[in-house]
Amino acid sequence: MDDLETPPDSHDREAALAVWHCLSAMRASRPLVHCITNYVAMDISANALLAAGASPVMAHAAEEVEDIAGAAGALVINIGTLDAPWVESMLAAAKAAVEGGTPWVLDPVGVNATPYRLEVAERLAKLQPTVIRGNASEIATLGASGGAGGQGVDSTIESFDALDAAQDLARKTGAVVAVTGAVDYVTNGRDLVAVANGHEFMSRVTAVGCTLSALTGGCLAVADDPLDACVHALVIMGIAGEMAGERAKGPASFRLAMIDALYEMEESHILEAARIG
Amino acid sequence: MDDLETPPDSHDREAALAVWHCLSAMRASRPLVHCITNYVAMDISANALLAAGASPVMAHAAEEVEDIAGAAGALVINIGTLDAPWVESMLAAAKAAVEGGTPWVLDPVGVNATPYRLEVAERLAKLQPTVIRGNASEIATLGASGGAGGQGVDSTIESFDALDAAQDLARKTGAVVAVTGAVDYVTNGRDLVAVANGHEFMSRVTAVGCTLSALTGGCLAVADDPLDACVHALVIMGIAGEMAGERAKGPASFRLAMIDALYEMEESHILEAARIG
Amino acid sequence: MDDLETPPDSHDREAALAVWHCLSAMRASRPLVHCITNYVAMDISANALLAAGASPVMAHAAEEVEDIAGAAGALVINIGTLDAPWVESMLAAAKAAVEGGTPWVLDPVGVNATPYRLEVAERLAKLQPTVIRGNASEIATLGASGGAGGQGVDSTIESFDALDAAQDLARKTGAVVAVTGAVDYVTNGRDLVAVANGHEFMSRVTAVGCTLSALTGGCLAVADDPLDACVHALVIMGIAGEMAGERAKGPASFRLAMIDALYEMEESHILEAARIG
Repeated sequence: MDDLETPPDSHDREAALAVWHCLSAMRASRPLVHCITNYVAMDISANALLAAGASPVMAHAAEEVEDIAGAAGALVINIGTLDAPWVESMLAAAKAAVEGGTPWVLDPVGVNATPYRLEVAERLAKLQPTVIRGNASEIATLGASGGAGGQGVDSTIESFDALDAAQDLARKTGAVVAVTGAVDYVTNGRDLVAVANGHEFMSRVTAVGCTLSALTGGCLAVADDPLDACVHALVIMGIAGEMAGERAKGPASFRLAMIDALYEMEESHILEAARIG
Repeated sequence: MDDLETPPDSHDREAALAVWHCLSAMRASRPLVHCITNYVAMDISANALLAAGASPVMAHAAEEVEDIAGAAGALVINIGTLDAPWVESMLAAAKAAVEGGTPWVLDPVGVNATPYRLEVAERLAKLQPTVIRGNASEIATLGASGGAGGQGVDSTIESFDALDAAQDLARKTGAVVAVTGAVDYVTNGRDLVAVANGHEFMSRVTAVGCTLSALTGGCLAVADDPLDACVHALVIMGIAGEMAGERAKGPASFRLAMIDALYEMEESHILEAARIG
Repeated sequence: MDDLETPPDSHDREAALAVWHCLSAMRASRPLVHCITNYVAMDISANALLAAGASPVMAHAAEEVEDIAGAAGALVINIGTLDAPWVESMLAAAKAAVEGGTPWVLDPVGVNATPYRLEVAERLAKLQPTVIRGNASEIATLGASGGAGGQGVDSTIESFDALDAAQDLARKTGAVVAVTGAVDYVTNGRDLVAVANGHEFMSRVTAVGCTLSALTGGCLAVADDPLDACVHALVIMGIAGEMAGERAKGPASFRLAMIDALYEMEESHILEAARIG
């Protein structure tokens, strides 16, 4: 990446092929993706994972999260509609995942919105997440720069403005950090990759970011490298958004078409559209 | 309104323009709408608010509802899938909203179905809701006429039959009361406005009433007057239903098209279709 | 059924007519169907029931489940996202249903996935469910053959392979047992009926099995015989899937079209397509 503020437009065939191989592997092996996610994201996340080829399971009971997280191909923890009993289950599941060698994704939804969310997200971030994915406000808050504001769950800053925070967060936690927006950035604290796929309607459908975290879980379950898995998930979801944008009249028809696109996506779509830099 | 039993069909240009200005203001300012709503309504409510231009946030944890309700442009409380911990959060959020000057909407889903719901709705109704919106069975139960029956969450009487109850409830609580159905009525206990927009499929999609309450929150956040905000939300949602009805083959394609319509709606749609009397 | 491994393709006019009469009765009487179901299934279940003509109500609070289950036309209990408080409500609701003469459906989602789910499902199965519906892995686990494996909520075996377990489970519990898959089998421990309607996309949309259980509740509320009600629900849902398959580009457009089809379905669709053997 030479110029961080310019979105990548190169068509790196090798990088695009790796995305396709990841999607193909997910379809072939149907990895179990254990999601402890928010009520709004459950439906779209489960359907996106199924459409993309993975096998989602939603489970949050203290009595079973360790069993499931330990057996899953990946675990996804999303704090979007957290409360105390769920937080206990999230902590237990994350520990079980780490002990069982299951990669796991932390999605700190709205961590900038309340002190409670920040406290919970910081506790989770200490449990060796494989990936942390959030919007710019979220990553800026959870990272070193702190207090980036925004009172809800939508970002009030651009992804580029959270780059330093993302890199600090990656170094602090050992996680790969993805900060998503019009351009997405992925970093392990050293390397930095940008992805410029996507569509403006993705911010007009609820839980698209959450769904991206879920799909990242699916990619983690079949990829060798967490940074690659993040990039693959971002490209797959972004291209699905672009395919959907061609059919959509508004946010709801966009959402439908985006999930269909995860099912329909072929090698040629990825080779033609991937924008990785 | 001269004849309450005849649906309004006048095209009051000034009233219709006010609806458009409300929708435009919502799109421009993207108000944060805090929803403590039922599990079935979360997805459609969040997507409808996003499509209409608002920024929804779903949050129910006792540890954070006061922070969010106090900072939001409006709060929406819906008892559709209530239980004891959620009820505590609803009460705390309502109090925080009132203290912080945040307008709030009470949606007493199924208050006619069980004594527990009635008890909870009555406690909430005492916390100065800005708006109470329900179907005829719900408003009749919560209002003076009481015990209007119906064992589920669908109304068994017409909206007109709950008019007295609505006016009593408005006087008793100080809230604007909206009773929705084929024709919707809005009253502050003195004034009465009817809205005749909508489509029959709106009763064949789950949580459309809940979504209307959520959208009322969005309008409250940008309107000066609660009665106007109610009317605006009813007209916007009703016209979205009419636009959707032209495209739909059944309830699911209707739901999709209705959300798309909230995004696509232009001034001309409202000026041509608003039926306010 | 002469040859269990060969899907039925006969067009038994009388059996098909009975399906149509069941759907018509549901549309005419709009039975209240009380669902205590998982978070992922709530939206699609409620919308499918509404589209098919029933009146769904989702309620799980200990304070009200007995009131609602006792008054409902049918109760549906689905353990997909269970936790301890919900399990208590499920047990109370099931008892109230039995006491009140309300037929009830048990959907043991993912019972094969964790010991906790198995323990809960076994407790529920002892409370005289009218119907137990699951995929092959679930029925095999809950039935006599036990431990059929699969770590998530998707089946890893074919429905035919769970036939013995289904019959054992029916005899053990007194319930009608439906094991669904590419071909569905329904048994009361003596009689056995196969249904071969459906579409491959039904396994690519989340909570379709859960929705089938919900629809079974709707049919139970209007049918005389539980085995017939199961068969009717399977045929209705399967034909809705076939109708949707003609319109769908992927899983999301399939889901939409399947719900629309529940609304659009006419006698001729059923007489032409029902495959009951």
